[in-house]
Amino acid sequence: MSTQAGLHTPVSLKARPSAPATLTRCRELVEPALRKAVQGLHPGPGRIAAHAFGWCEADGTPSSGGGGKGVRPALAVLGTEAVSASAEAAIPAAVAIELIHTFSLMHDDIMDGDERRRHRDSAWKAFGTGPAVLAGDALFALAVRTLAEASGAGSGAAVRQLTVMMGELVHGQADDVLFESRPWTGPGAVGLAEYRAMAARKTGALLACATALGPVLAGAPPLLTDTLARAGQQWGLAFQAVDDVLGIWGDPAVTGKPVHSDLRRGKKTLPVLGAMAMDPSLGPRLEGLLTASPDEAAVRRAAGLVEEAGGRAYALRDARTRVAAARDQLRAVPLEASCVDELIALSELLLDRRL
Amino acid sequence: MSTQAGLHTPVSLKARPSAPATLTRCRELVEPALRKAVQGLHPGPGRIAAHAFGWCEADGTPSSGGGGKGVRPALAVLGTEAVSASAEAAIPAAVAIELIHTFSLMHDDIMDGDERRRHRDSAWKAFGTGPAVLAGDALFALAVRTLAEASGAGSGAAVRQLTVMMGELVHGQADDVLFESRPWTGPGAVGLAEYRAMAARKTGALLACATALGPVLAGAPPLLTDTLARAGQQWGLAFQAVDDVLGIWGDPAVTGKPVHSDLRRGKKTLPVLGAMAMDPSLGPRLEGLLTASPDEAAVRRAAGLVEEAGGRAYALRDARTRVAAARDQLRAVPLEASCVDELIALSELLLDRRL
Repeated sequence: MSTQAGLHTPVSLKARPSAPATLTRCRELVEPALRKAVQGLHPGPGRIAAHAFGWCEADGTPSSGGGGKGVRPALAVLGTEAVSASAEAAIPAAVAIELIHTFSLMHDDIMDGDERRRHRDSAWKAFGTGPAVLAGDALFALAVRTLAEASGAGSGAAVRQLTVMMGELVHGQADDVLFESRPWTGPGAVGLAEYRAMAARKTGALLACATALGPVLAGAPPLLTDTLARAGQQWGLAFQAVDDVLGIWGDPAVTGKPVHSDLRRGKKTLPVLGAMAMDPSLGPRLEGLLTASPDEAAVRRAAGLVEEAGGRAYALRDARTRVAAARDQLRAVPLEASCVDELIALSELLLDRRL
Repeated sequence: MSTQAGLHTPVSLKARPSAPATLTRCRELVEPALRKAVQGLHPGPGRIAAHAFGWCEADGTPSSGGGGKGVRPALAVLGTEAVSASAEAAIPAAVAIELIHTFSLMHDDIMDGDERRRHRDSAWKAFGTGPAVLAGDALFALAVRTLAEASGAGSGAAVRQLTVMMGELVHGQADDVLFESRPWTGPGAVGLAEYRAMAARKTGALLACATALGPVLAGAPPLLTDTLARAGQQWGLAFQAVDDVLGIWGDPAVTGKPVHSDLRRGKKTLPVLGAMAMDPSLGPRLEGLLTASPDEAAVRRAAGLVEEAGGRAYALRDARTRVAAARDQLRAVPLEASCVDELIALSELLLDRRL
C-alpha cells in the first residue's frame, strides 16, 4: 500500500526527510511550548494531561513515550512552512491542535467506555470520570486560549476556524455514538453517505484544521489554506478508513483493542458499509450474527463475510484514493514543494499502520 | 438584607425597573438568539441542552420554566447598555455567557454527582454521563464560536477574555473538588484566602466576564470594562457566599438539595471557614463530628456550632459588603446611571435568595 501511494515522482532532487524524521523535528519544535502551556494548568487536570501526553505515569513519576506520534502538530508545522511562513509561526496552531486532539480522546474514551489509550490506561480509567471530564475541559479551554493569544495576521480567522471545527467534532462524535444503536438493515440503517459525513466531521475536520490552521494564522491566501484544508480532510477520511480496518482485523497487540472489537460493538464502519453496498444479501446475515451480544464465533464469521464480500479491500482502496487525491490537489497550487513532499510522506504514514 | 443593600440614593428620578422586569426584558432580548444557536446543534446534544435550558422535558416534549433566572445574560446586556452601546450589541456575549454557564453546570453535576439541577433531573441523571459530557462540550464549542463570529470592535479581545475566564473556571472547579478531601484542621486545612481564590475563579470569573464581555465586544475603554469586571467579580463572591449559606441552612424545597448538604459532603465553605477563623476551637470539634460518614445528628450539631460561632452572619456580611463595594465602584466611573441602577438592583437579587 505504501508503495502504491508513493508512486509520485519527487519534484525536488534534495533527499526528502523520512516521515519519522519529520515527526521528530516537529515534535522537538512544538513540545516545549506544549509543555509550557500544560504546566500553567491546575496541578490536578495538569497531571492527567501530562499522563495523556506520555510525560508521566498516573502517580506523577516522569516517563517518556506513551504519547501519540504527533501527526497533527506536524501537519500544522508543515502546512505553515508550505505557505512560506516560518515553522515558529505554526507553534500556537500546533499546540492548540494537539490540545484539542487530546481533549477529544479523553472525552470520547469516557463516552465509549474505552479503558486503554496509547498503550496505557485511558484518563477516566486511571483518574476517574469526573477528573477526566475536567481535564478534558481544561485542555479545550487552553487550546482556544493559546490560539486566541497568538499573534499573526489571521488570528481572528484562526480562532473562528478552530471553533467551527470543534462543533464538527462534537457533531461527528454524536453521530458515531448514535450509529451504534441503529439497525444493520431496513430504513433505519446507516448509509455510506451518512457514514462519510460522520467521518468527515469526527476525523476529517480535525486533520483539515490541523493542516490549514497555521497557514490561516499566518495570513496565507484562501487558495492555499482551502487546498490544505481539503487535503487534510482527505487524510482524515483515509485515516478513519484504515482505523476501521484495524478495528475489525487489527492485531490486538498493536491496536490495544480486542480483535473484531468494532463488530462486537455494532459499529457500522466503512468495510462493513462498503461490503453491504456491494452485496445486498450481507446486511440480513450480519444482522442475524451480530444482534444481541454475539459470541466469538459469530463475530469471527461476520468478519469473514465482510472480507469475502470485499469490504476490507474497499476500505483500503478508499484510503489510498483519498491520499492520492490530496497529493494531486497539493501539487496543483503554489506551495513550497519540499514541504508538500514532507506532507505527502506523512500522509502515507497514516496509511501504513500495521494491519 | 435587601433593605440594607438598598440604602443607596437613586441617582435617577425616573422609576427604576424592578430586577424581575429587567430579567424579563433581557430574556426576551437574548432567548431568540440562544434558541437559534442551540437549534444548530446535533439533535442529540441539542435535546440535552434544550432540557437544561428548560425548553423541553427529557423526552423532548416542549415545556417552559425550569431554566435558570438568566442573571448572567442580563448582566451582559446591562453592562453593554451601561457603556452606551445598544442592547443588541450585547447579544452574542449574552448568548456565549449563558452557554458557558450551562456547560459548566452540566459538567460540574457529573463531577459532583448532583442529581438535581433547576428543579429537574441534571443532564447526566436524565440522559447518561457520556451524552452529558458531549452536550457540555457542544455548548462550550458553541459559546466560543458565537463570540468568535460576532462583529464588534473588540471581537478578538472578547474571545481572549472568554478563554481566560474558561481557564479560571476549570481551575476553580479543580480546587473545589480537591478541597472536599482536605482535612478540617492542621497544616493541610483550607484557609480563608485559599477559599476566596477558589471562589473568585469558580464563581467570580464567570460573573466578571458576564458583566464586562459585552462592553469589551463593543470596544468600550478599559476604565469601564475593568470596573464592570471588578463589580461582576464582587457579585460572584457575594453570590457564592449566599450559596454557601444556602448549602448549609437552605430550605431543601427551595435549593433542591438535602438540608446541611455541604457539611455532609465535607465542603469547606465560607460560613465554616469564617467561623473557624473567629473561633480556633471549632476546627477540631467539626473534625470530630464530620469525619467519616457523619449521621444526621452530627451534621445538625455541626451546623449549630458554625452558626453559634457566627459563621452564617460572617458569610452574609461578606456578601453584603461586596455588593456595596461593587455599587460604589460602578458609581465612581462614567457609566449610564440608569443602567448602573438596574445592575445594582440585579445584584441585590443575588443576595435576596430565600434563606
